[in-house]
Amino acid sequence: MRAVNPFTLGELAHISGAELAGPANLLIEGVGTLQGAESGDVTFLTNPLYRDQLSTTRASAVILSPAEHRGTSLPCLLSANPYACYAQVAQHLFPLPRPLPEIHPTAVIHPGAQVSLRASIGPHVVVEDGAQIGDEVTVGAGSFVGARVSLEKGAFLHPRVTIYSGCQIGANTIIHSGCVIGADGFGMAPQGEGWLKIPQVGRVIIGKDVEIGANTTIDRGAIDDTIIEDGVKLDNLIQIAHNCRIGAHTVIAGCTGISGSTRIGRHCRIGGGVGMVGHVEIGDRVTVSGFSLITKSIPTPGVYTSSIPSQPHREWLQTLAHLRGLSEWINRIKSLENKLENDESHSAVSGRS
Amino acid sequence: MRAVNPFTLGELAHISGAELAGPANLLIEGVGTLQGAESGDVTFLTNPLYRDQLSTTRASAVILSPAEHRGTSLPCLLSANPYACYAQVAQHLFPLPRPLPEIHPTAVIHPGAQVSLRASIGPHVVVEDGAQIGDEVTVGAGSFVGARVSLEKGAFLHPRVTIYSGCQIGANTIIHSGCVIGADGFGMAPQGEGWLKIPQVGRVIIGKDVEIGANTTIDRGAIDDTIIEDGVKLDNLIQIAHNCRIGAHTVIAGCTGISGSTRIGRHCRIGGGVGMVGHVEIGDRVTVSGFSLITKSIPTPGVYTSSIPSQPHREWLQTLAHLRGLSEWINRIKSLENKLENDESHSAVSGRS
Amino acid sequence: MRAVNPFTLGELAHISGAELAGPANLLIEGVGTLQGAESGDVTFLTNPLYRDQLSTTRASAVILSPAEHRGTSLPCLLSANPYACYAQVAQHLFPLPRPLPEIHPTAVIHPGAQVSLRASIGPHVVVEDGAQIGDEVTVGAGSFVGARVSLEKGAFLHPRVTIYSGCQIGANTIIHSGCVIGADGFGMAPQGEGWLKIPQVGRVIIGKDVEIGANTTIDRGAIDDTIIEDGVKLDNLIQIAHNCRIGAHTVIAGCTGISGSTRIGRHCRIGGGVGMVGHVEIGDRVTVSGFSLITKSIPTPGVYTSSIPSQPHREWLQTLAHLRGLSEWINRIKSLENKLENDESHSAVSGRS
Repeated sequence: MRAVNPFTLGELAHISGAELAGPANLLIEGVGTLQGAESGDVTFLTNPLYRDQLSTTRASAVILSPAEHRGTSLPCLLSANPYACYAQVAQHLFPLPRPLPEIHPTAVIHPGAQVSLRASIGPHVVVEDGAQIGDEVTVGAGSFVGARVSLEKGAFLHPRVTIYSGCQIGANTIIHSGCVIGADGFGMAPQGEGWLKIPQVGRVIIGKDVEIGANTTIDRGAIDDTIIEDGVKLDNLIQIAHNCRIGAHTVIAGCTGISGSTRIGRHCRIGGGVGMVGHVEIGDRVTVSGFSLITKSIPTPGVYTSSIPSQPHREWLQTLAHLRGLSEWINRIKSLENKLENDESHSAVSGRS
Repeated sequence: MRAVNPFTLGELAHISGAELAGPANLLIEGVGTLQGAESGDVTFLTNPLYRDQLSTTRASAVILSPAEHRGTSLPCLLSANPYACYAQVAQHLFPLPRPLPEIHPTAVIHPGAQVSLRASIGPHVVVEDGAQIGDEVTVGAGSFVGARVSLEKGAFLHPRVTIYSGCQIGANTIIHSGCVIGADGFGMAPQGEGWLKIPQVGRVIIGKDVEIGANTTIDRGAIDDTIIEDGVKLDNLIQIAHNCRIGAHTVIAGCTGISGSTRIGRHCRIGGGVGMVGHVEIGDRVTVSGFSLITKSIPTPGVYTSSIPSQPHREWLQTLAHLRGLSEWINRIKSLENKLENDESHSAVSGRS
Repeated sequence: MRAVNPFTLGELAHISGAELAGPANLLIEGVGTLQGAESGDVTFLTNPLYRDQLSTTRASAVILSPAEHRGTSLPCLLSANPYACYAQVAQHLFPLPRPLPEIHPTAVIHPGAQVSLRASIGPHVVVEDGAQIGDEVTVGAGSFVGARVSLEKGAFLHPRVTIYSGCQIGANTIIHSGCVIGADGFGMAPQGEGWLKIPQVGRVIIGKDVEIGANTTIDRGAIDDTIIEDGVKLDNLIQIAHNCRIGAHTVIAGCTGISGSTRIGRHCRIGGGVGMVGHVEIGDRVTVSGFSLITKSIPTPGVYTSSIPSQPHREWLQTLAHLRGLSEWINRIKSLENKLENDESHSAVSGRS
């Protein structure tokens, strides 16, 4: 893939802090996988499984660990953390496209909103009363920024994001299209045959350097706020219910749902398709395997799982029948134990006689 | 949280039907949790676990049941259903913000649409031919109201809602941002190596007092309609497939998917992350635990579950290995039974000889 | 449901290739189910369970297989594949509504975009620099078409679709409201206590005759592209992660999540609520049951399952307790085996003595 900004290998070494092993003036014009790279591209080796591809890649340079250096004669960037090195290199070759500062003439900005002259407000955006939009903020086309919302410096809303009133978005946080931040939490009180809505008067407070994937939803708090701390990374189609708190640098993969008032610690790794019931507390550095269910608090770090890999359908039906029949098999084990017990006492009795 | 409209405690007692135990003219200016409330706030006690906080809360008044009254000397609203009382109080302190009636100049309204003069149509809204928008309806910024859609009195669409043609939304129903109502159901006929689309010509009919969470999708019927009855409450990121019928006052939590032509009764409580296959019938007052799968009709009330809570990963791997190995263990039980059977008949035979 | 375009039964026989068994000039003005059809409607019988309804339907004509013909005296269309026949008939009675070619005056089209004079661009649409929009393309109200996106002939975007820069949408592909195509994949490198974003510089390439349900998200590739082949059908609220490839004519039901770099073959049928981990390869003609988890590659066709149907809650708690206790029961089986083994060798020894 052709870079937006080309750099020399020497510049990229400087930017990423990697050791340069090759000509400083080699021009890097793009990136590619070991297999797909073309001349002018930089590639990277992070998984030893692909080591063989070092000899056949058409890339012009490789990012790898010093231990792998002997595997190639190509120009290299040597780094103890080659994937992070690649991230830094790629961020410079492909910077987040920042539109020029402007307020598009089709945007509808309430006169009571404060919009930095250095912000970019796209077409058909709506910004309501009291919103505060900081320097170098981008609000993508068709996004909605509710009353009293604050978007801090460098926040980036892709097109068609919705931020309900009162929510705060931290510096350099990226929100992808279709996200809904601050919709009402799912709160109601039973009364008679129906339900009374509990007004959801808290907010969503999102820290800095957060990234939120497409069509993810984060509900506002019922009374207190829902909080997403700095550096949290959320994938697509995630549901974060009201009054949750997600600790700093925690990552959550797609299609996961976190029920209300649950607190997740810092540096956790939550897989995709996970469910968490409400009002539980997950400590720091907890990993939850994809497709697992959390029903209790987890105070200690570790990996937690309840997911079941598929089998061929007929085998699974048998497994399932056995699972359903466990009561009977357990009774049959007990009955065997009793029988053996009786036989033995009988023998013992006979022996004595 | 500061209220939009302050009320006196006496007014709130009158509004909610609660018994006033304190000065009628005490001004209530906000709400808070027992722990987070400030002076001027009303709080509430519904969970006995928090009873201890009654003595330390900074709230100016408390909503609680008469049985808990002795636990506090604060001014109180006494109610047999304190959570419902709180709901009513909070609804008055924080009314749903109803924008002033207007059609924003950037809205695109087809001349064949009928829009009440008492409706509020936000910026960048699109309303197509034959749509009917009733009194006190709010259509949030950027929403799309398709041809012949009907929005009854007081219906509230938050920003960026999509309603496909022909659908009906009942009175006072609230739809949150990102919802898509009336997209085509997933219907196709196999033909040769591919699929032919079945046109989805039914509609979605939604009753009154329904609330639908952010980014939830409800598909139109294939031929007949998909129906959401009065008072249904749907959380975020739910999928309701074509030709489903959800009975009145049923609540469904987030990330749940209901397959086509399934009928759910009235007053059901469906957890989050639930799956239901198509063409099943769930009776009234059925509860489905979160993360469970429904594959058959459930005619009788009760709680139904198939979800498995997580264990530490290694323990779970062992559980899983045992589950997969059940066939072998069952064979070993049978073999023990046979052996014991033979031994006994052998003993019996020996005994006889 | 009243048709948009009425046809005679003879015309519908001709269109669908079915055998006409009835008056060619019978006017068909709508469609209905066997139970719900009215006079003027055509209905169909595909499931023998509904055969009894043939005698009571009020439809004016029936689509069914020749083998079922003796069950009715109504005018018929006879087809070996009556459901596909119905699909073709209904597609003509209810054609996809194609708005007239126009660029709505509220649309914001970059001068560097190429838009066919035969395309229809709805209100409040945004089309960025370098986008190419072909003949008979429909871009629904409020949709966003990023820079250098290509929409091929007849592609149909419903309202409020987002296509990020560089993505390609094939001919006659239909994308429902709320979809986000080409958002950044979930890629980051750990560094220190936090994460570095991996720029996602690949694209999403979607073939022709694809249909994508409401609020589904398909992420762009990290370096190489995410690819959806011709004729794929995706339901609502599906997540397709970066660098996946979905083979031609594969269908995936709602709420399913496919992790990064997974490849699914052609003609697969993936149920709803399914999870797939990353980097696995699913062969052609694989079926995955709803609510199942795929953790390994599946090279051979067949049905794969790991979903557990619900039980009444107390029964399930017992099943779960047994499942958790399997280690103990297995130990007790082993202990029984040892005991019996010892008894026998003891008996044998006794016998010899």
